[in-house]
Amino acid sequence: MNSSYKSLKEECYQANMELQAEGLVIHTFGNVSAVDRDKGVMAIKPSGVPYKDLKSQDIVVVDFDNNIVEGRLRPSSDTKTHNFLYRNWGQIGGIAHTHALYSVAWAQAQRDIPIFGTTHADHLTKDIPCAPPMSDALIAGDYEYNTGMQIMDCFQERNLDPSEVEMILIGNHGPFAWGKDAHKAVYNSIVLETVAHMAFLTLQINPDAPSLKESLIKKHYGRKHGKDAYYGQ
Amino acid sequence: MNSSYKSLKEECYQANMELQAEGLVIHTFGNVSAVDRDKGVMAIKPSGVPYKDLKSQDIVVVDFDNNIVEGRLRPSSDTKTHNFLYRNWGQIGGIAHTHALYSVAWAQAQRDIPIFGTTHADHLTKDIPCAPPMSDALIAGDYEYNTGMQIMDCFQERNLDPSEVEMILIGNHGPFAWGKDAHKAVYNSIVLETVAHMAFLTLQINPDAPSLKESLIKKHYGRKHGKDAYYGQ
Amino acid sequence: MNSSYKSLKEECYQANMELQAEGLVIHTFGNVSAVDRDKGVMAIKPSGVPYKDLKSQDIVVVDFDNNIVEGRLRPSSDTKTHNFLYRNWGQIGGIAHTHALYSVAWAQAQRDIPIFGTTHADHLTKDIPCAPPMSDALIAGDYEYNTGMQIMDCFQERNLDPSEVEMILIGNHGPFAWGKDAHKAVYNSIVLETVAHMAFLTLQINPDAPSLKESLIKKHYGRKHGKDAYYGQ
Amino acid sequence: MNSSYKSLKEECYQANMELQAEGLVIHTFGNVSAVDRDKGVMAIKPSGVPYKDLKSQDIVVVDFDNNIVEGRLRPSSDTKTHNFLYRNWGQIGGIAHTHALYSVAWAQAQRDIPIFGTTHADHLTKDIPCAPPMSDALIAGDYEYNTGMQIMDCFQERNLDPSEVEMILIGNHGPFAWGKDAHKAVYNSIVLETVAHMAFLTLQINPDAPSLKESLIKKHYGRKHGKDAYYGQ
Repeated sequence: MNSSYKSLKEECYQANMELQAEGLVIHTFGNVSAVDRDKGVMAIKPSGVPYKDLKSQDIVVVDFDNNIVEGRLRPSSDTKTHNFLYRNWGQIGGIAHTHALYSVAWAQAQRDIPIFGTTHADHLTKDIPCAPPMSDALIAGDYEYNTGMQIMDCFQERNLDPSEVEMILIGNHGPFAWGKDAHKAVYNSIVLETVAHMAFLTLQINPDAPSLKESLIKKHYGRKHGKDAYYGQ
Repeated sequence: MNSSYKSLKEECYQANMELQAEGLVIHTFGNVSAVDRDKGVMAIKPSGVPYKDLKSQDIVVVDFDNNIVEGRLRPSSDTKTHNFLYRNWGQIGGIAHTHALYSVAWAQAQRDIPIFGTTHADHLTKDIPCAPPMSDALIAGDYEYNTGMQIMDCFQERNLDPSEVEMILIGNHGPFAWGKDAHKAVYNSIVLETVAHMAFLTLQINPDAPSLKESLIKKHYGRKHGKDAYYGQ
Repeated sequence: MNSSYKSLKEECYQANMELQAEGLVIHTFGNVSAVDRDKGVMAIKPSGVPYKDLKSQDIVVVDFDNNIVEGRLRPSSDTKTHNFLYRNWGQIGGIAHTHALYSVAWAQAQRDIPIFGTTHADHLTKDIPCAPPMSDALIAGDYEYNTGMQIMDCFQERNLDPSEVEMILIGNHGPFAWGKDAHKAVYNSIVLETVAHMAFLTLQINPDAPSLKESLIKKHYGRKHGKDAYYGQ
Repeated sequence: MNSSYKSLKEECYQANMELQAEGLVIHTFGNVSAVDRDKGVMAIKPSGVPYKDLKSQDIVVVDFDNNIVEGRLRPSSDTKTHNFLYRNWGQIGGIAHTHALYSVAWAQAQRDIPIFGTTHADHLTKDIPCAPPMSDALIAGDYEYNTGMQIMDCFQERNLDPSEVEMILIGNHGPFAWGKDAHKAVYNSIVLETVAHMAFLTLQINPDAPSLKESLIKKHYGRKHGKDAYYGQ
């Protein structure tokens, strides 16, 4: 079948399968999307389809008003959350949502993940934020749209930059991560789960473990990001 | 060999193997059954057979009085528990029993699993109940039959609906889960183990973690269940 | 090469490989032996050989005085411990020693593993004993021989029967398990690690978790052992 | 392509791949190097290359002044740390750096890993040291060079011998391990992660767990090291 969204759907499909291969999801939980801003569409996992049955052609393409542009299946029930973020944050190209164990545990505990070490600082300079649960009125309204708003509000209140902090926990729910493309969004989901796991263990060993000091945060983040970066090729 | 229970045995066999593939059992522990109400029989794993040696033709078919209808091997020692539940709960089609680590840990701790997040609420709206240990008199009596009664009593006392809460912990023992067929029973066993793991980690991070609020419970359960559900295809 | 110990060596080899496949050992740690009482010998893993390089013909056969009867390699450094147990406990046919994580953790914590649930009671009716560290004099003496003595002393002091309690922790060291043959010794090592893991999690959830009550211990052990057993084929 | 460093690069490549196969790294994290003292060079993983894409010919060869001698890619950003250790500790042949979970957790907790059992004492007789975080001045300076100095300073202050204690934690960062060659460095990284995991669990079970007594430390270390060793072939 011809499709003008073939490579977008393939990118989205591969990223969804990577999510599962990395052990971040069970059953049908979780979803990854990829955006094509020139065409004004995003591709996302269909709702409730097990990863083992998922095929590239099952990926659903929707426009920014959540209308289906291509695909026989219903898109993820979290589609409006993804679209909200794409519309408000022009620089991101992919979004991933999981129910990974340690990320969810911190979200259920309603706690930010403190920056304890260089694994964390290699990727972001702030604690990983945990947005508070939504108000009852917003839950009763357009829930998935409001989840996107909840994420953006949290970033605005804390003065965080979504280009630098590419991940968040939704209180009582779980993690969202994003990046320049769908693969990077999954990459960041793995970083988040790893950092969540390390921080969990750290507090078990030393409940008074101090945050990483500012000089080390700057050094490690700067090795990988910005004009003086010297990590990688 | 001809068998009028071939598809029932195959459903039961596949579900048992899935139990092992998902890492919920070791050695010969655990068992899954599937019922055929029209024929008045259920199929169940034979007692004490390692999963790696299990074949579809080894599955034992028994009637609702626990008489063997087909099969050369003895059925699971938990057969009467399964049969008790099939006889009393007309709507269920499959039952799974495991010794999965986190589920067993909560059972041994004699604690209900609190509803802390949306992963839980996507599947049920209540804490996962932990039935108290049986009285000495009942243990000395028809133990496996009484285990079924213990499950039903717990649901009646707490006014729980087995169509909505498809899982329970038996204090000091472990989990039982059920569903419309054997596959769904295994699916629910995985949900239970995942939720048990998440709740365990949540309390380690924040011993005072609050339960999920009612509006979020209703929203998430309603996304997947009932007339207004919009999750899945 | 002809060998009158071929099947004994093969049993020992297979059990050692099973130990690794089950994830109970890393590097060269751990060892399994099998005894042939008619021939007055036991077969054991050679010392310090990685599992990935181990072959059936590498297995070393020694007599009850620890003399090599067949084999080009040095036997496990724990050989005297195994021989001590074979000589004193006439009914056992195989022994396994591992450095499995949860078993070692309880040994390092110098704590018996409390009997919290039916997974434990399906296999033994007592807490899993943790022998105290050896006296300095015994450590300076024939250490591996004395480790065997330490195990036997612990069983005698506590009036335990090695036919019923087929496992022990050596304080600060790790677990030994045994059984009617080498495969059963590995089986019991897995049971021990699983029960150690479950008990660990149980105490994290509920530090005051009570021991399993006597009636349930008897019921579950009796389902699998003794004249009224009805588990298995 | 001809290379006079072919076997050195192959040793380095194999050790890096082993690091990943053992689950000690995710993404591009971690690196292993191997030294050839006769040729005055070391081989190391290129910076930021995912393990699944890594090939033997990608390995970078640098001299002791960190100049690239062979290789089209940039060497690991930690190259100067490796070189510092090779220059100061003439007896070591390989170095491995990971972000393994339990090792990092102890580093983030800024705690030495206490010697609790024989798994630890089989490899070293001291607590595994955790070096304090670097001063701001040193962080702002030649960071990776100073990390090497930080390791050496910690060993000198505590009077530790790098031939006996072949591993360290850098506070808030993670583990470095070394050995006679690159394979042994990876071997020691696995030992460190295993011992870190065991010690973590031990303290959860018994926060007052005592250190291993001196006689057992000497006995177990002596079984494997020194003139009276009798472990292995």
